[in-house]
Amino acid sequence: MSGPPFQIDDWQTAAAKKRQELRDSIPESHLLPDDLAKKAAEGVLLPSDPEVLKCGILNDLDIEITSIDDAAALLDRIAKGIYSAVAVTEAYCKRASIAQQTINCLTEIMYDQAIERAKYLDGYLMNHGKTIGILHGLPISLKDLYGVKGVHATAGLASWIPNISAEDSSITKGLLAAGGVLYVKTNVSQGHLMVESINNVFGTTSNPYNTALSAGGSSGGESALIAAKGSILGSATDGGGSIRMPAAFCGLWGVKCSKGRMPTMGIQSPGDGNESTNTGLGPMARSVSGCELWLQAQLENQPWNFDFNCIPMPWNTEKAQRPKSKLVIGVVRDDGVIRPTPPVSRALDRVISLLALAGHAIIDFPAGEIKEIHQRGTSCVMKSNVQGGGRGIMQHIVASGEPVVPRTATGSPASLLTAHEIFANHKERAGLAARYNTLWVQYSLDTILAPAVAHPAPPHGKYVSNCYAGIYNMLDYATGSIPVTTVDLERDVAPPEWYNAPAYPRIEEVRFPYDWGDKEMKEIYSSPEVFKDSPVGVQIACRRLQEEKCVSILKEIEALLREGGA
Amino acid sequence: MSGPPFQIDDWQTAAAKKRQELRDSIPESHLLPDDLAKKAAEGVLLPSDPEVLKCGILNDLDIEITSIDDAAALLDRIAKGIYSAVAVTEAYCKRASIAQQTINCLTEIMYDQAIERAKYLDGYLMNHGKTIGILHGLPISLKDLYGVKGVHATAGLASWIPNISAEDSSITKGLLAAGGVLYVKTNVSQGHLMVESINNVFGTTSNPYNTALSAGGSSGGESALIAAKGSILGSATDGGGSIRMPAAFCGLWGVKCSKGRMPTMGIQSPGDGNESTNTGLGPMARSVSGCELWLQAQLENQPWNFDFNCIPMPWNTEKAQRPKSKLVIGVVRDDGVIRPTPPVSRALDRVISLLALAGHAIIDFPAGEIKEIHQRGTSCVMKSNVQGGGRGIMQHIVASGEPVVPRTATGSPASLLTAHEIFANHKERAGLAARYNTLWVQYSLDTILAPAVAHPAPPHGKYVSNCYAGIYNMLDYATGSIPVTTVDLERDVAPPEWYNAPAYPRIEEVRFPYDWGDKEMKEIYSSPEVFKDSPVGVQIACRRLQEEKCVSILKEIEALLREGGA
Repeated sequence: MSGPPFQIDDWQTAAAKKRQELRDSIPESHLLPDDLAKKAAEGVLLPSDPEVLKCGILNDLDIEITSIDDAAALLDRIAKGIYSAVAVTEAYCKRASIAQQTINCLTEIMYDQAIERAKYLDGYLMNHGKTIGILHGLPISLKDLYGVKGVHATAGLASWIPNISAEDSSITKGLLAAGGVLYVKTNVSQGHLMVESINNVFGTTSNPYNTALSAGGSSGGESALIAAKGSILGSATDGGGSIRMPAAFCGLWGVKCSKGRMPTMGIQSPGDGNESTNTGLGPMARSVSGCELWLQAQLENQPWNFDFNCIPMPWNTEKAQRPKSKLVIGVVRDDGVIRPTPPVSRALDRVISLLALAGHAIIDFPAGEIKEIHQRGTSCVMKSNVQGGGRGIMQHIVASGEPVVPRTATGSPASLLTAHEIFANHKERAGLAARYNTLWVQYSLDTILAPAVAHPAPPHGKYVSNCYAGIYNMLDYATGSIPVTTVDLERDVAPPEWYNAPAYPRIEEVRFPYDWGDKEMKEIYSSPEVFKDSPVGVQIACRRLQEEKCVSILKEIEALLREGGA
Repeated sequence: MSGPPFQIDDWQTAAAKKRQELRDSIPESHLLPDDLAKKAAEGVLLPSDPEVLKCGILNDLDIEITSIDDAAALLDRIAKGIYSAVAVTEAYCKRASIAQQTINCLTEIMYDQAIERAKYLDGYLMNHGKTIGILHGLPISLKDLYGVKGVHATAGLASWIPNISAEDSSITKGLLAAGGVLYVKTNVSQGHLMVESINNVFGTTSNPYNTALSAGGSSGGESALIAAKGSILGSATDGGGSIRMPAAFCGLWGVKCSKGRMPTMGIQSPGDGNESTNTGLGPMARSVSGCELWLQAQLENQPWNFDFNCIPMPWNTEKAQRPKSKLVIGVVRDDGVIRPTPPVSRALDRVISLLALAGHAIIDFPAGEIKEIHQRGTSCVMKSNVQGGGRGIMQHIVASGEPVVPRTATGSPASLLTAHEIFANHKERAGLAARYNTLWVQYSLDTILAPAVAHPAPPHGKYVSNCYAGIYNMLDYATGSIPVTTVDLERDVAPPEWYNAPAYPRIEEVRFPYDWGDKEMKEIYSSPEVFKDSPVGVQIACRRLQEEKCVSILKEIEALLREGGA
């Protein structure tokens, strides 16, 4: 058989071997001392703990380099020779190793190639007096699904453990063409089918702010690594919140592009040919500048010339500037599926008040209209996601005999749609898209501001719903992720009204039992203590393929948050 | 019931009434004299016959105006006040009436509104000293499916006869914003589901060069009208050859955009939610300039601000210029589904030799690779088109009790696919798209040159296959239609080798019995006499969403054909 799934007779042994290989690829000088390793094994060590920073793995230069959050600023220093690409790469390799040992976020380590590449880039800069491209010397992490020639891509599936990519993905090519340094791949959910990052091959990725909490998924290895300062810029995908939920849970900026804006050849995922859902690609980073550079680098590579899935729209730098005129922003406060938890509403209010203070117009959408569109839209999304009835993904799981990770959206015979049901769902979606379209026109909107997810980073396995994210996949809007605040144990106590409000009904409980409902949200949010130290983020959604406008508005909000204080 | 299908108890009476209303809307001064009307009724009168031109409907100015093929040249004269918009509109209304009486190409007549509009535009130009937009004063025809507020749209279905559009379609809005004058809507196939234009409401549209032949479809009312000089610029759609087959059969230029390049709100068609096929919109015209102006006008209206289906890519005038460097052109001579008839091969050879003479590189694709991709691709397309099993369209036919027009691609229980089969077909398509992509990269292609259809305009109801067109819907390429020559009774006699070559096997005969095969092609092409006086065209295909490049290359070929003579 030429490709995955591969028949795996003993998945536990294969997975243990894979994990051991990963451990063995961490250089000895990056290993935590025994006492810290013991704490890490107990899950009580954070990658940012002072004792970790001082344990001898990192020197002052490493900490200085990795403390820079703004990718543009770091690139500038590399271009000016203040830091060599080798020094930057070594620093990030060390912090990635630390992150791996504390929060288990990696799947592949490529440090040797990375250092070689960084040396080449340093030589190039010295010899030519200029950089290779806009990402010259920047270490960039990749979600496991991005093919790198000669490197494994497992999709979080035991039956994919032997899978080695024959080619670089288009995204990989774009990063390399711009001068990026690839050094790690990061963990995902089983088959990329859950909004946390748990699988039977690599285990569970934890949140770097509280290891008892999820880092989100399916791009959770990315979010955890970047938040742990083990990466400054990451490469992710989002078919139903897989950028926005990890970004929100880990306090990151991110962009989910509309389908087709970015090239998709060489993505390694067990897709079953279901084309009713819209997966968008994009970056996650500790700065908006990082996100923009990633997008710009991809399109400077003119991927439409070699990747038939990519729309030929160059990056428009002008449109991505911080806006010069006042914006009109529609707000979704509550989608009628899950009532946001207090910290999320607080984060939303904070962004609203900063925007309003800056003179932007805030439009509160009619609550009834929004709730109806979102409730019906969430049903559409859920139906679409599992309309194949699970046969596609199950063949990849059955091939190794590994168990299904609880809450993985595999689909089931109950979720199978007929051709007519699929078409009816498309028509329903088109009707809802037209209704949302009316709101854009009616209010002359520039963007929509909404929760990215109703809650902060949950205890592992306890996410409630991806409803706030999935609807904007359905509508194929370009979205931006905004880190706003952190759970506050006092201010985020929910008032009795919040608990006493009648629970919204569950959506598609039979066809899509993976997401929980409003009732479960109230149960899980027993106190902010459950979500202690979790970052809290929100999202903006722009019209389809308006990624530049999305970046433009993210820049405005980044500046307002910086100026307005935390 | 708020929209179609409407329950029609007596479809014959309803259709007869609709036809009578159409006849009654032709002004008396546009009616053919009795002797000519009699010949027209017998199908032996062409709209261009000298006796028609001299019968008193048209004056010299009308003939002068409508003899201009180049839309840009006519617009220039309107802008300079050489012709008033009223004079141009009146001339086109008269010729449209003549076309209707000879080749039956219209569904709606809107002359009164058109003249009012033209008067307004003339006044605007006089008062402001400038035009309203790039289509100022140009009469533009619309395929019946484009919604015009307050005007019927029947989709060639009896159950749609009462359907009146509540809104202008996005395309209608774009034409009006640019100063276009809307004066007629044109005939289609039943439910837009055949590549000829035959339906039970309006009957059959004939070819203006030979009334025994088809004008193609589903946009055949457009092609017939434009070729009859009853329009200079038309608005069409193409989900499987519906621009390219009519353009080829009627000797027109045309562009089929990729899905999403043009806005689609307000299109009136009995879609069933099948999203596996790619319908592209676009113009047909007697000049490339007309096609470009139509496309440019649409995008100058920024439809992405009000139509959620439209990709925000402005028209790039620079990229649409006649190319300044040499092109690399891949040629498909024979797709392995239907061997082209001699006139089509001759037309292809003519374009190839003109391009080669001009210094462009011609690449003959490996025949085996092309045939395998096209045979499998044609199967994919056929499966996709009818994967709903016919239930969607049949409800619109059953609602009136009208019969299915022979060869209408309704689908049937035999063509129904399950979700898994649909997904498998998507994967097959993606694989074939990747193989075609490899050809683009391997040869650094600028475009592909291929037959648009294997044969010239066939006798009514006898088209053989849309295989050369449908595959580029599957791949969502931007295509351009090129009129090249006319059937030549001597040069186009097929040699014995052509007849003796073993017939290619039928593709998807059970699921998609509408198209015939290579064997039937040989039977129908018993002699060029069968296709006498038919125009013959070919197509180019550019990568997805590269409409500007497509127009650029059309300009080159238009110039070479003009310079090279007929």
